[in-house]
Amino acid sequence: MDSDSIPNSTVEFADIEQPDEQARSAAIELHGKLIKPAGSLGRLEELGVWIAACQGQSPPRPFTRPRVVVFAGDHGIAAKGVSAYPQEVTAQLVGSLLTGGAAINVLAASAGASVRVVDMAVDTDAPATPSIGEFKVRRSSGSIDTEDALTDEEVRAAILAGVKIADAEVDGGADLLIAGDIGIGNSTPASVLVAALTGSEPVAVVGRGSGIDDNAWMRKATAVRDALRRARTVLADPVALLRTAGGADIAAMAGFLAQAAVRHTPVVLDGLVAGAAALVAEELAPGARQWWVAGQRGGEPAHALLLDHLDLEPILDLDVRLGEGTGAVAALPLLFMAARVLAEMATHEQAGISGPITPAPED
Amino acid sequence: MDSDSIPNSTVEFADIEQPDEQARSAAIELHGKLIKPAGSLGRLEELGVWIAACQGQSPPRPFTRPRVVVFAGDHGIAAKGVSAYPQEVTAQLVGSLLTGGAAINVLAASAGASVRVVDMAVDTDAPATPSIGEFKVRRSSGSIDTEDALTDEEVRAAILAGVKIADAEVDGGADLLIAGDIGIGNSTPASVLVAALTGSEPVAVVGRGSGIDDNAWMRKATAVRDALRRARTVLADPVALLRTAGGADIAAMAGFLAQAAVRHTPVVLDGLVAGAAALVAEELAPGARQWWVAGQRGGEPAHALLLDHLDLEPILDLDVRLGEGTGAVAALPLLFMAARVLAEMATHEQAGISGPITPAPED
Repeated sequence: MDSDSIPNSTVEFADIEQPDEQARSAAIELHGKLIKPAGSLGRLEELGVWIAACQGQSPPRPFTRPRVVVFAGDHGIAAKGVSAYPQEVTAQLVGSLLTGGAAINVLAASAGASVRVVDMAVDTDAPATPSIGEFKVRRSSGSIDTEDALTDEEVRAAILAGVKIADAEVDGGADLLIAGDIGIGNSTPASVLVAALTGSEPVAVVGRGSGIDDNAWMRKATAVRDALRRARTVLADPVALLRTAGGADIAAMAGFLAQAAVRHTPVVLDGLVAGAAALVAEELAPGARQWWVAGQRGGEPAHALLLDHLDLEPILDLDVRLGEGTGAVAALPLLFMAARVLAEMATHEQAGISGPITPAPED
Repeated sequence: MDSDSIPNSTVEFADIEQPDEQARSAAIELHGKLIKPAGSLGRLEELGVWIAACQGQSPPRPFTRPRVVVFAGDHGIAAKGVSAYPQEVTAQLVGSLLTGGAAINVLAASAGASVRVVDMAVDTDAPATPSIGEFKVRRSSGSIDTEDALTDEEVRAAILAGVKIADAEVDGGADLLIAGDIGIGNSTPASVLVAALTGSEPVAVVGRGSGIDDNAWMRKATAVRDALRRARTVLADPVALLRTAGGADIAAMAGFLAQAAVRHTPVVLDGLVAGAAALVAEELAPGARQWWVAGQRGGEPAHALLLDHLDLEPILDLDVRLGEGTGAVAALPLLFMAARVLAEMATHEQAGISGPITPAPED
């Protein structure tokens, strides 16, 4: 593939259709008939309505194959001392994830979701297993303070990898998708993308990541400042933005999240890194955000900015800031409950239960 | 039983032992060894530590029999127009709960918990089934604006019913307990108890309950004012307080919650009614609150007051205000995850994963 001959605009997504309005209305109407005061299940009611709209039917089906795809990649910027952990931890964590000892394995098993890991740019020659390396584009993305994260060709390959993975998962029966991240230093490019797309200054986006001290925070702020200067020259082009200041893992996540929307498949977003990818995905495929909910409010300042920008209200606020998809998986059982309430609760008519004496304000 | 011969003080609870400090410390230490940045699972880490302390072992065991007991009762005050629903709905909802169509049935099934219903004072001659009526003390509790909710004998029978139910559940293997409520008008006595024990004025505790309009709100505020005047004369005696301004269902819940602590069994609290019972239970058995977590922040103003008074920080904030135990059950999967993280995640040593370059602030 000759990258010079392919303009960025070749990474194109189908127009995003919105979740089904008829199913949404039917779910709202059904909620009013169930044996509970109107609105008394709060956010669980809203989530049930959203699930019905995404599935195009009310009551919604129970979820049968919720699926977490963890995108792993290293980042050259880690060499600048922006993380509390050495870069080798990325590959080590991928190994743990494959043997089931990582946080996401435990939470996903508890929630009834399955996990897949994809090596997009871990800093090793060979992937830990051939199957997770199918889409690997390079060893570590570039150090975005001084160079592009990826070449033109690589960024397109990474985005398309995300698209193909989303397609394969949906074709394989996945009915709810989560994008997780593993990568030492990945909160730095994520923070740059958020600053670029929300028009924020470095100081407003730089957080403590995996637990850095003040000196590392200053190094991270410097890295974000320098990368942001480079990113601002390509703001209008999301593909160029991922090439300049993202990375192979984040580009793949952006493609994955956009394609999930193309495929009418609901998504639960995790924390800063998945959220930054979502922010770019919304640029790639405007309207995709209607197919996403935010699983949680993380502690990173850039995460709050991006949720606000995407107009997403998080379900949980537990200060989970681990990544891997953990914050999204923690919210999964609430989505399962929200769907089952609509599918399984009795109506006033079925149960022979009297309604309010006078219509409640919400009726 | 001759009520005059039995002073209130005969309803006595064993001294409450606190959750195990050694298991708590061991769980905190274990969290520091797992393959994640220190503290990065936020509230899930704290919950895991609390579970370990309650169980007296680290890592904690997975929960095997989480159990919801729904206490049903009518309240004479409902005749004063304080609810959006007619009183007959209590008995109808008990019927739905027994056939599996109520909200708590659906949420509990989704979370993997089982549900039991107990008729303490539903306004029917006979309970819906004999087994749920074993502890029934009367038809409807008294109208607390003008009369006591219960006699001396009844309040003691109700509290002891809660104790016996907690004992039977723990003896039957329950390792986590939730108290749910069903009863038209029950947020009125609950609000009175909260106002009495937190020293609040009626206007600060009266909420919209199941969705009342402005006129009903004013009737409810009047009822709370009148009942509170009566309750304040017995503030120092929690048994007399339940007799004066509680009800058979709330008294049983208070006994149940206190006895759960006696039996070293963790509890997830739901909304206003269970919370008001908890507030009294803490008076009956000081220190019991160390065995409870708050499942959620409900919308009722009195609920926020009682959580503050008990120094409990809710896990969820989803505006669930249905009762039945629903808000507590919604938080259950997070407790399951919190326990499994400690039991199943790999340590840095097991996984051969490098630690931080420099100790993170939390280390």
